[in-house]
Amino acid sequence: MEPIKTILALAESYRKLPGIGPKTAERLAYATLRLTPDDRRLFIQAIDDSLTKVERCPHCGFYFEDSCPICADPKRDHSTILVVIDSKDILAIEKTKNYNGLYFVLDGTLSPLRNRNAKAIGIPRLEKEAETNKAREIILALPTDLEGETTSLYIASLFGKKNIKVTRLAHGIPVGTNLEYLDNLTIAQSIQHRTDMDKGGNENG
Amino acid sequence: MEPIKTILALAESYRKLPGIGPKTAERLAYATLRLTPDDRRLFIQAIDDSLTKVERCPHCGFYFEDSCPICADPKRDHSTILVVIDSKDILAIEKTKNYNGLYFVLDGTLSPLRNRNAKAIGIPRLEKEAETNKAREIILALPTDLEGETTSLYIASLFGKKNIKVTRLAHGIPVGTNLEYLDNLTIAQSIQHRTDMDKGGNENG
Repeated sequence: MEPIKTILALAESYRKLPGIGPKTAERLAYATLRLTPDDRRLFIQAIDDSLTKVERCPHCGFYFEDSCPICADPKRDHSTILVVIDSKDILAIEKTKNYNGLYFVLDGTLSPLRNRNAKAIGIPRLEKEAETNKAREIILALPTDLEGETTSLYIASLFGKKNIKVTRLAHGIPVGTNLEYLDNLTIAQSIQHRTDMDKGGNENG
Repeated sequence: MEPIKTILALAESYRKLPGIGPKTAERLAYATLRLTPDDRRLFIQAIDDSLTKVERCPHCGFYFEDSCPICADPKRDHSTILVVIDSKDILAIEKTKNYNGLYFVLDGTLSPLRNRNAKAIGIPRLEKEAETNKAREIILALPTDLEGETTSLYIASLFGKKNIKVTRLAHGIPVGTNLEYLDNLTIAQSIQHRTDMDKGGNENG
C-alpha cells in the first residue's frame, strides 16, 4: 500500500526545502494533516502571500513588502556595499546597529560543479550596483567554506582592478567563547590577525 | 529591523509542525521564498487537498481519499485489530504483507501531564470498534516509552476484562543487527522471551 496522493504531494513539497530528507518530508506531510484546518489555511495564506506580496529588491536582493527598507533609505551610506548570500544575514547584521551602508545578496557562491558561475550568482549585478552607487568599499561576509572563499577571492580580484577597496569581516574568537570549544582554524586566524591592546580593531596585514 | 510579515507568518506555520524549532522554522520560511512560484503553487495545492480531499476513516483513523482501503476490504480479517499511534505505522506494517486484520490509530498515548486521558486518545472508539467487529484479538504496536507502556497496560487490562486476547509485537533483536549495537533493555527482553529452536515464533509467558 502506498501513501495517498496528497501525502505524497505534501512530502514532495517539503522535500524541495534545503536540509529536508525523504524521511523528514514524509513525517512533516503526516504532521500537516494533523494541523487544525485553520492552521492549514494560515499556512496556505502565508505561502500565497509569498507569491503575491513579497518582492525582491532589484538592487540589493533583499525581500520586502512595500519598498526596500535599505536601498530606499537616503540616510544610509551608499558608498559601501556589504555582500552576503542570504537575506537572513542582513537581518543579523542590522541587529548589531553597527553598519549603515548598503547590502547585496548573492545568489549563492561560485561552484563549477553545480554550474554556478559569476553571472548565475549575480556578480555582474553587483558590479552595476557598485558603479551606480559610486561604491568605495565592498565588504565581504560570505561563508568560510571552500566555495565561499573562492567567491570572496574572485570578488576581491575583480574590484581590486577597479580600485575599489574590498574587505572582509574579521575572523577571530567569538566574544564570550572559550578557546577549548573553538576549531583550530579559528584559533590560527585569531593569532595571525591579533590586535594591539591599545588599538580598538583588527589589523589588516 | 524585523523580518517581513510574510516571513514571520511562514515561520509561524512551520513552527507548528513537530520537531521544528524557531531557528529551523525561520530557515524554512526563507527557503520557501526561494522556491520557484510553480513549486509554491504545488505546495499550496497539496495543503489545500489535505483540507478538501483527505478524510480520516471514522472506524480506524487511517487517512484516505476515496474510501478506507482497510476497513472497506471484505477480504481482511475483521476479528483482529492492530493498534498504532500513527497512520505511517500502518503503511510500515502493510509493507511486510504479514498482517491481514484491521487497524486502529490512537490519537497519541495516555499522558496525565499533557491532559491526554483515555477518551482524548480514542480508547472508547477502539472499544466500540472491537465490539462492532466482534474482535477476538487486539495487537498492540505502541511506542516502548513510559507513556506507550502505560497505554499498552491500560488497554490490556481493559480488554482482558472483556475476554478479548491482547497481544503486543515481540521485542527482541532486529534481524541483521549485531548485539554490540543494541541497548541493554532490548537484549534483556530478547533473553527473557527467548524462543525454542524447534518453534517458529515467540513464546508468550
